[in-house]
Order: sequence, then structure tokens, then C-alpha cells
Amino acid sequence: QVQDETDATLFTTCNIMDETPSAWIETHLSAGAKLGYDPKLHTADAVKQLRAACDKAGAVLLACETNPLDAVWDDQPPPPSDKARAHALEHAGQSSAEKCAKIAEDLRDKKLDAAVITDPTSVAWLLNIRGSDVHHTPLVLSRVILHHTGKVDLFIDPAKVDPHVDAHLGDDVLVHAPQALEAALKALGAHDSKVLIDPMSASAWFFDVLEEAGATLTRGDDPCVLPKAIKNDIEIAGTRAAHVRDGAALTTFLAWLAKEAPTGTVDEIAAVTKLEACRAAGGALCDVSFDTISGSGPHGAIVHYRVTEKTNRTLQTGELFLVDSGGQYVDGTTDVTRTIAIGAPAEEMRDRFTRVLKGMIRLSMARFPAGTTGAAVDILARQALWHAGLDFDHGTGHGVGSYLSVHEGPQGIHRRSTKVELKPGMILSNEPGYYKTGAYGIRIENLIAVTEPHDIAGGERPMMGFETLTLAPIDRILIDVALLAPEEVDWLNAYHARVRETLSPMVDDDTKAWLEGVTQAL
Amino acid sequence: QVQDETDATLFTTCNIMDETPSAWIETHLSAGAKLGYDPKLHTADAVKQLRAACDKAGAVLLACETNPLDAVWDDQPPPPSDKARAHALEHAGQSSAEKCAKIAEDLRDKKLDAAVITDPTSVAWLLNIRGSDVHHTPLVLSRVILHHTGKVDLFIDPAKVDPHVDAHLGDDVLVHAPQALEAALKALGAHDSKVLIDPMSASAWFFDVLEEAGATLTRGDDPCVLPKAIKNDIEIAGTRAAHVRDGAALTTFLAWLAKEAPTGTVDEIAAVTKLEACRAAGGALCDVSFDTISGSGPHGAIVHYRVTEKTNRTLQTGELFLVDSGGQYVDGTTDVTRTIAIGAPAEEMRDRFTRVLKGMIRLSMARFPAGTTGAAVDILARQALWHAGLDFDHGTGHGVGSYLSVHEGPQGIHRRSTKVELKPGMILSNEPGYYKTGAYGIRIENLIAVTEPHDIAGGERPMMGFETLTLAPIDRILIDVALLAPEEVDWLNAYHARVRETLSPMVDDDTKAWLEGVTQAL
Repeated sequence: QVQDETDATLFTTCNIMDETPSAWIETHLSAGAKLGYDPKLHTADAVKQLRAACDKAGAVLLACETNPLDAVWDDQPPPPSDKARAHALEHAGQSSAEKCAKIAEDLRDKKLDAAVITDPTSVAWLLNIRGSDVHHTPLVLSRVILHHTGKVDLFIDPAKVDPHVDAHLGDDVLVHAPQALEAALKALGAHDSKVLIDPMSASAWFFDVLEEAGATLTRGDDPCVLPKAIKNDIEIAGTRAAHVRDGAALTTFLAWLAKEAPTGTVDEIAAVTKLEACRAAGGALCDVSFDTISGSGPHGAIVHYRVTEKTNRTLQTGELFLVDSGGQYVDGTTDVTRTIAIGAPAEEMRDRFTRVLKGMIRLSMARFPAGTTGAAVDILARQALWHAGLDFDHGTGHGVGSYLSVHEGPQGIHRRSTKVELKPGMILSNEPGYYKTGAYGIRIENLIAVTEPHDIAGGERPMMGFETLTLAPIDRILIDVALLAPEEVDWLNAYHARVRETLSPMVDDDTKAWLEGVTQAL
Repeated sequence: QVQDETDATLFTTCNIMDETPSAWIETHLSAGAKLGYDPKLHTADAVKQLRAACDKAGAVLLACETNPLDAVWDDQPPPPSDKARAHALEHAGQSSAEKCAKIAEDLRDKKLDAAVITDPTSVAWLLNIRGSDVHHTPLVLSRVILHHTGKVDLFIDPAKVDPHVDAHLGDDVLVHAPQALEAALKALGAHDSKVLIDPMSASAWFFDVLEEAGATLTRGDDPCVLPKAIKNDIEIAGTRAAHVRDGAALTTFLAWLAKEAPTGTVDEIAAVTKLEACRAAGGALCDVSFDTISGSGPHGAIVHYRVTEKTNRTLQTGELFLVDSGGQYVDGTTDVTRTIAIGAPAEEMRDRFTRVLKGMIRLSMARFPAGTTGAAVDILARQALWHAGLDFDHGTGHGVGSYLSVHEGPQGIHRRSTKVELKPGMILSNEPGYYKTGAYGIRIENLIAVTEPHDIAGGERPMMGFETLTLAPIDRILIDVALLAPEEVDWLNAYHARVRETLSPMVDDDTKAWLEGVTQAL
């Protein structure tokens, strides 16, 4: 992709998996070299790494006062200007006032004066506001200073705040223009404030301004990140409703695909167009949650493939078609992948698909005590592949927001060591895969929510688990039943029965008849 | 145990799981209180934690010049005086000179002048020496300064070093009395040396002396720990041989137990006596590797139970008997647990035993790519228990030394987040369990060695796995076959066939006949 999109006479391409930027700096910068950076575009942690790399090379890292790229970027688009929107209590499940009061209490407990919150997803969660400033993620560009009193300074283009949103924000939230941010940070310093700020998300500029002004910094997690990840009961109920709606749309698309694709008339773009139309037809879709990945044959093996007019190809018999897509609904964000055989699949495809499915099911069925991390359960999704000498090179699951970003932290299911525990209410994807470069790709993705610990009949200790949110049939033609354990067959049959019973009343007659067939027990 | 062994009028008992010593200090020490510690008995990391806790309480942590417990300990035994022994190259697999040269090269690469190695297990590995200074672990009390030149200063009671050992150590190892250590550390400081030292194993005293003398300290892992954990081919061959020998002894004991225990004539002490006699009868046993855990009925539920004349009880029909034991052989260290039904077991016992066994087998069969940690595979040993709302409160596996400590790091299989990867040649225990307080305990333990990555037929990526070292039958009466997956049955049958074929030629006729029966395929 980078080869296609850059001018090789100007740019040298390096593989970041082979050599990190820090490693490149260490070996390529000469002693005394000066490396500039824009302190507003790098987190404090990233600058720390760059500085360490420059130190090793004997080079110097310098903050630029202005960004030289901006200076030559003539057709730079204007900043987004869409209005902010109130995110209603019936979807948020907790008022902004309550959220602010709770975090302010934590600040007081830690003898801190304020938290500087720079991540717009955190601001969106904290203040129950949404916007349209970023493609497919309902954010409004904004920053917050939350004081230990519970009062909030919100820095946002005032033109985005109409009287309705202003009323929604309430009296404890003061709206300021973004230009007022620097002075407000300096004021924190002038009052010798103890300020919480997250070096993993806040840019170096915040640290520079605050420290120079005399603030005492406590580097710690953005206080919104964990409560945002742990959805409340209303958010969980919302995502269930969104998934029913989204599942009906996806199933309508899959029934259409089953009918049309074998005739050789469907290409990757037509599939995207049809799927987005099915989602939009429900009337509740705010946006897709990311650009749909619609990959036929070898394109399925490109994990983040995005079809263009140039790459577009027809879905062909004997191939697999991988479609990874999602919707933004006011009550929830969805993300789902299905892999479909066009015509009869090869035996190898069925073997690989079944191993991926085994992993997806094993993870869906997992039981675990409180304190378990996503890293600890990751192997459940991979063991059937590893036993065959196969693997996939992406995480098994990422966190998902509540009508927010389709990728959110801190939760995740992956091989990297982590101390982040799976907590009831967290939403994650469960998406093992298998990719054969130049041939085909397989991924099966459901969203899952971590359940409260519950007693198990005959057991002694309550165990947590996952509730599967996504509802859409899984292609039975691709399953080699002989490879499934009896409890895996039971899981799949129960899942398909649930999909059928939930979605049948919501789809047209043709789709319903098709769904009836493809969800029969194995 | 602590209630039994301490005087409650003098000691108040706290549960370390509920309240760490640091947490206790924070809440119980008054402002201005002074807490003394012996800097030779706490690691630098531990002192750091104690100091932080004292700071929070407003108390002061002070190093004691002399230890007040020593002052009142009238019957303190003299230091051990047994001789050091050479650990022959045919067992060590690598000369001490090679080991020292490799680590010295690493020191030079890191521009360090010396490493201070304070852990006697590291010294034993580095210099290929063993001793008898610690019960059941063949150590000689000693410290080392390894210089970047490859030269070694060894601090050890010179009376322990006879001419044979002195010759074995070679010209590059200078023997000094322990009293010379402080001056040698000060000399490092006087030469402005850059010194590697491990704050997780070295006592605070080393840091105090070195820093006061002006040395520059690099806090890092003891450079012997990782190479010691990664056994070479000769060490792996040695442990295989030791496990055959040890398995024959344990199997002889188990055959005796099967005959004698149902008559009600065997108590826990008699079982230990018989088992140790079986091990000793082989003629190759140097020592047991720890005090045998011989727990019948409710005693099986006490994870570290050690039978005494007072607690001794007879093995009774309808109960389980748990025996956890091991041997020190010059070519390897063993550690094995078997749980045996005396008479007919209850259904619940069979259910629990089978779930523990499933975990032990799942872990034995695991396949994983390079880079996988012990924490990532731990769930394989627990998932069958977690699905039933059951668990066990100890790690699944610990590292095991090569004719060294039966517990060694850094490798382990447990729930705690870790970045230590499983490396080919590491030996670990695989010992899931289940404990019903006051009723019975179950543990099944084999030692396993991490294998090199190897190709899998039809696969794309080499995968590592585990080679099972321990050879002894697993009580089939306790297995509910209906709970096992077909591949788990296959694993157990293949394991039992291997046990039978390997051990039959080494045991007496009665044991052989018994072994034939108990290793039949399920």
C-alpha cells in the first residue's frame, strides 16, 4: 500500500516491523544531527522514546515552533465545522454531572487539583456529547480541564455549541475557544496546581506548557479511559438493540449475496454498496463505523484491504469473500466479519475456516475468574491453528466504544503482556483469522461483552464469561464438522438458533427463508 | 500451620494474601516510628518497597548495624561446613570457562566492568560446582565478582575448596574468604567501576557498600539466570536419564502402595519412608529434592503439607492420597506428584480428578510460536476447572534446575502478567490441582521441557511445544473417560504406553505385572 501511495523518488520506505523509528534513528542519525518534531503531534511518551534514540546516536531532538509541513500544505482543508450533539441520558446511562463528580472525587482522594483530558473520545464520554469531526467516529474535537471541584473547562470551537448542547452541558461546564487553552494551562501552573495528565495520549506540548508554568504533574492514566470501557447496563442494553438491527441488515445482505454472487455479477464495490444500503434501510444508522473491508479471493488476505476502482474485482466461484464492516448507531457501535464461500470451497479452505471458527467459539465459551487479562485468554482463539502450524498476525480482539470509536482501549485480547483485567461491561471483538497471501483470507468476528461473575451449578467460585452480541449466520458450507468438538457444535447450533429466532421477524420473506436454511443445526 | 508453630501470646498472625507487609506498615506504623531492617537479609527491591511504605506512614526505615535476633539466638547452629564438589562437564554440558567468557563478552558489549553475582545457584551454574550447604538443594554458599576480562573472584569458605575442586575451578578463578568480599566491593568502587547487580536477588547491603565506595551501578538481571534456565542438550539428556531412574523408583512405590494401602496398614510417614527407600535403592540418588508431601484425605488439601509424628494418619479406603516428591541426581532434578485413590473413589473425586487431568494434558499437548510466555499458556491447565466453577490457588508450573534448585526462575506458568518467554531447553513443572479443604486434594504433576520450534505436517510456521520428562502411571480409576476429548484419551494412552515400555525393564516382576495393568489403554 505504501509503495502505491508514495513517490519513491522522494520517500524511502522502511518496514516498521523490522525496524522501529527509534531503531532507525539510532543507526541512521549522525552525531550532532538535529531532529525536529512538532510537540503538538507526538505524545509525551513518544517524544521520550525519540529523545532516547537521539541520545544514543549523539543527535539532538528539537521541538519546532511551527510545523514545516503546514507551511507548504497549500490545499490543507479547513477544520471540520459540524455541530456537537447531545448524547441523551437514555443512551449514555449516566449523566455527565455524575461522571464528573466521581472523577473529581478521585482527584480529591489523590490530592490532585485537576485533570487535563486531551483525548476527544474521553471528552465525548465525560460530557455525553458526540459530533462529526472525524470520519466514522462520532467525535467533536475538544479538550477538557476537569477541576477537583467537579467544574469543567471545555475547549471547543464555540460555533459547534448550539443553545441545546449548551443547556445539555449544564452550568458546571464552561465553554472556551481552543485558543484559550494555553492560558488556562498556564493558570494551572500559576496556582501551583497538581495536575493529572496521561503521557500515553496527551501531546508533549501540554507537558511543556504545564511544566514551564510551574504545575506539578502526575503522569497517569486518563481517568475517563477505564470507566468509558466498562459499559453500564443501559449501554449494554443499547448495544444489544443495535446488534439486532445491524444483524438484520447484514443478514439481508448475506441472503442477497448468496443469490447474486454465484452468477458472477457482484464485484467488491457492489458488495459494499449493497451492504451499506441494507444498513441504511433500517433508518437508524448514523454512519458506518469504518470503511468496509470487502475482499474477494487474494484481497481477503490483506487484513486492512480497502477496495478502490483500481483494485475492484468480481467475486468468483471457488473463492472466499471476506467482509468486515460495522455501523454507528446512537445506542451502540458494531463491528462484524463474515467469510463466505462463493460456490464450492476447497478442502484446505474448509480446514482453515474450521480452525478459525474453533478459536472463535472457544473464546466465546471461555469462563474465567475476576482478575483475568485479555492476554491470558488469547491462546483459546489460536490453539487450533497453532496445532496445525498456522497463525494470524493481528490481535484477537480490540475494545469497542459505545456509539464511539470502534477501536478503544484499554481492553484487548492479544499476545502482548498486559495488566489490564477484563471487567464486566467491557465490549471486545473476537476475531481470529487465517490469511494465505495471494490466495484467500478468513476472519470470523463477533463482538462480545464481558459478563458479571456468576455461579456455575455444582461449582464453588463465580466465573465471568462473554456474552456474544453480534447476530449473523456463519457459513456452514465452510465448516468441517469432524474437526469440531461436541461442545463446539452445541455452541454453534445454539448461536444459529438464536440468530434465526431473533432476526427472522425483522427481515423480508426471501431473507427469512434463506436464514431458516443456513441456520439449521449441524 | 503458622498457628501451630508460633506462640500467639508473642506473635500476631496476619494473612499475607489479605494484607502485604507494605500495606500493614502503611496502616499500622505511626508517624515518626522507626523500623529497623538487616540490610543483608532483604533485597534492594524489597527495601525500596519497605521504604515507600514507611514514607506513606510518615515512619523511618533504618538499617541495623547488627541483627538483634542473632544477639538472642543462643543455639544458632554453626555455618555448614561440607565441601564443595566439582560438577563434571559430562553433566554440565558446558565448561565454566566458556560460561564466564560469554558473560564477560556481554559485559564488555554493555561497557560494564564487572557483575556481582550473589545468588549461590548462579555461582553453582557459572562455576560448575555443587555442595551440601542447603537442605535438598546442592548449593555451596558463595558469591562471585565476574570481571569483564573473564576473571572471577570467588568468595567462599576456603576450607570447602579441596585441591580437586581448586583444580576444577582453574586459574581464572581466585578463591577468597567471605570476609574479603567487602574490601573487593570497595575496590570496585575505588576504580570507578561500572557494576551489574540484580536488585531482585542481591541484598541491600551490596548496594550500600558499592554505592558508598563510588561504583556506578547498573541494575539488571543476574546474567546467569537466563542461561541457567535454558538447559543445553547434555543437561536435557541428563534429566531424561534421571527421570527414567526416578520413574522406576516411584512406580515401584506405587505398586507397593496399591497392594498395601487397602489393608489399612500404611500411614503417611510409612509412605514417605518407603518412597525414599525406593529412590535410594537405585544407588544414584544424591538427595530428595524437597521434603516429600505425603497427604491422605484432608491433608491432601494442604498444598505444602509436611507430615509429622503428630499429624500422621493412616491411608483409608474411600480417600485420596496425594504424594509430591522428587530426587536430586547428578544428571537432573525431579519433581512429580501423583494422586491415588485408596479403594473406590466418590464420583465427585473422579470428576475433579478428570478436570485436573484435562488441564495437565492440554498443557502437555500445547503448541505455540516463539515469543509465547508461560502466562499465555496457563489457561490451558485451568479451563476445564473454570468451566465447572472450580480453580486452584497456586501457579501451574515453576522452573526446575539441572541438579540444582527444584524451584528456579525466571520461567514459570501462572496467571501473573510476565514478559519472560518460554525458551527451548527450559524445564518447568505442569501441576494443576484441586483442593477441597477438610476433605481431599488432587494434584497431577509432570516435569516438561520446552522444545525447539519444529515444522508441523501441512503447516506453515514452526511451533514449539513441551516434551514430558516425568514417567509414572496416572491413576486410571480416578478418570471419568466421558469427560475427556478423544485427543486427550490418545495423549494419555500414548503416555502410559511410553511409561510401560520405558520402565518395565527396570522394575521387579511384581511391579512390572502391576504396571502392565495400570497402563492399559482407556
